[in-house]
Amino acid sequence: MNLADITMGQFDLVFNAFSFTIAVMGAATAFFWIQRSQVAPSYKTALTISGIVTAIALYHYFRIADSWDQAFVVLNGEIQTTGKAFNDAYRYVDWLLTVPLLLVELLLVMKLARSETISKGLRLGIAAAIMVVLGYPGEVADDNAVRLVFWALGMIPFIYIVYELFVGLRESLARQPAEVRGLVNGARWLTVLTWAFYPVVFLLPIIGLTGGTAVAAVQIGYTVADILAKAAFGVLIYFIAVRKSELEAKAATS
Amino acid sequence: MNLADITMGQFDLVFNAFSFTIAVMGAATAFFWIQRSQVAPSYKTALTISGIVTAIALYHYFRIADSWDQAFVVLNGEIQTTGKAFNDAYRYVDWLLTVPLLLVELLLVMKLARSETISKGLRLGIAAAIMVVLGYPGEVADDNAVRLVFWALGMIPFIYIVYELFVGLRESLARQPAEVRGLVNGARWLTVLTWAFYPVVFLLPIIGLTGGTAVAAVQIGYTVADILAKAAFGVLIYFIAVRKSELEAKAATS
Repeated sequence: MNLADITMGQFDLVFNAFSFTIAVMGAATAFFWIQRSQVAPSYKTALTISGIVTAIALYHYFRIADSWDQAFVVLNGEIQTTGKAFNDAYRYVDWLLTVPLLLVELLLVMKLARSETISKGLRLGIAAAIMVVLGYPGEVADDNAVRLVFWALGMIPFIYIVYELFVGLRESLARQPAEVRGLVNGARWLTVLTWAFYPVVFLLPIIGLTGGTAVAAVQIGYTVADILAKAAFGVLIYFIAVRKSELEAKAATS
Repeated sequence: MNLADITMGQFDLVFNAFSFTIAVMGAATAFFWIQRSQVAPSYKTALTISGIVTAIALYHYFRIADSWDQAFVVLNGEIQTTGKAFNDAYRYVDWLLTVPLLLVELLLVMKLARSETISKGLRLGIAAAIMVVLGYPGEVADDNAVRLVFWALGMIPFIYIVYELFVGLRESLARQPAEVRGLVNGARWLTVLTWAFYPVVFLLPIIGLTGGTAVAAVQIGYTVADILAKAAFGVLIYFIAVRKSELEAKAATS
């Protein structure tokens, strides 16, 4: 994508979106790690991982904001590219780490049998990693045809993950306590809906958006998707963990 | 607002105010998180969030101080603007996150029924976010008429929040233990009074302050308001949490 068409307003908007995300990810990380004390031991790992996901994103958004800042310079009141490329790889490195971990979070808070957690975690985690790896060559391609080919390839593991979350976890969902079934189902849907956001954003440059608008829309689109898929998802996982801890404490004393 | 009229003395004063705030927010964050151990489990979340609010402000004041520094340069003993704009958006991004959280702090320390906390938290949080979003276009406008229009628009959710805090929480306040009713009422008043500071500061450029004095007055005004609304308010929340924890421990053993 061509950075040269960015306007001053678009540069500021994207930079401020990155800075906002740094604040959100930092706040979320602190929240998940500190509030670990509020859940039963069996749910603490899920909160640790929620915080690890947002901490990884925190690091990458610092890098992304810095790379964005270094790609441009203001000369005589006009914004120009410095020639230093904006590093798209940070996002993909981030996703390679965080996307499998997000699936692990969901499995951990469901508290399945250990063997089931491991087998599902491996299958979903590997599919998620393949999905991210397949997206990258399309993201950095200048040719829209190449972008589309890798989009289609990446959709294969994505559809497999959606299938596993909906069909594979249906039975496990039915075994959740009635009081949290709605929340767990919500987490499953939030995963699918926020993840579906990424391939849509990925396609923006193909469906007619061009120039600075395309660059800004892709960056802000991914940023919004990251906030929902990582921080908001983590808050939902936290509520599930708190509610299940309370239910188990009540069951133990009655 | 025109940065070009800033004097060396005004530049230093504003920069030092920002640096002071970094120290205060960092200290407050450490205090709230470390002292979480001193309150009962049901009040720990309020302290976690007090610390998150000041941590978010800490991050933004680092950015704000840096942006202020980069907007000016001293050449031959004279202060000049570099042409790099001072980023006003940091404050608004900060408020967008912290203002709803401050209301959540107050609700959490009141320990209402869960459904009441959620419904009031959502209503107040959304009103607070709308208030901040409506302020921004006025803040960055060069035209005082535009500034005044967005001020008036932002006052609508502000008045709604004041109404909710005073009328909507009156009954919940009456249910607080007698020993902390004064403190909780104080927190409610501190919210309204410190928050009322912001729209006043916002109006300074309209009511006759001009040039460097207006810029410096707005920056220092917001800074003082942030310290009171976030750090001082958090200390009050801490005292309420400690007092209520003691009362509940006494009630449990008697």
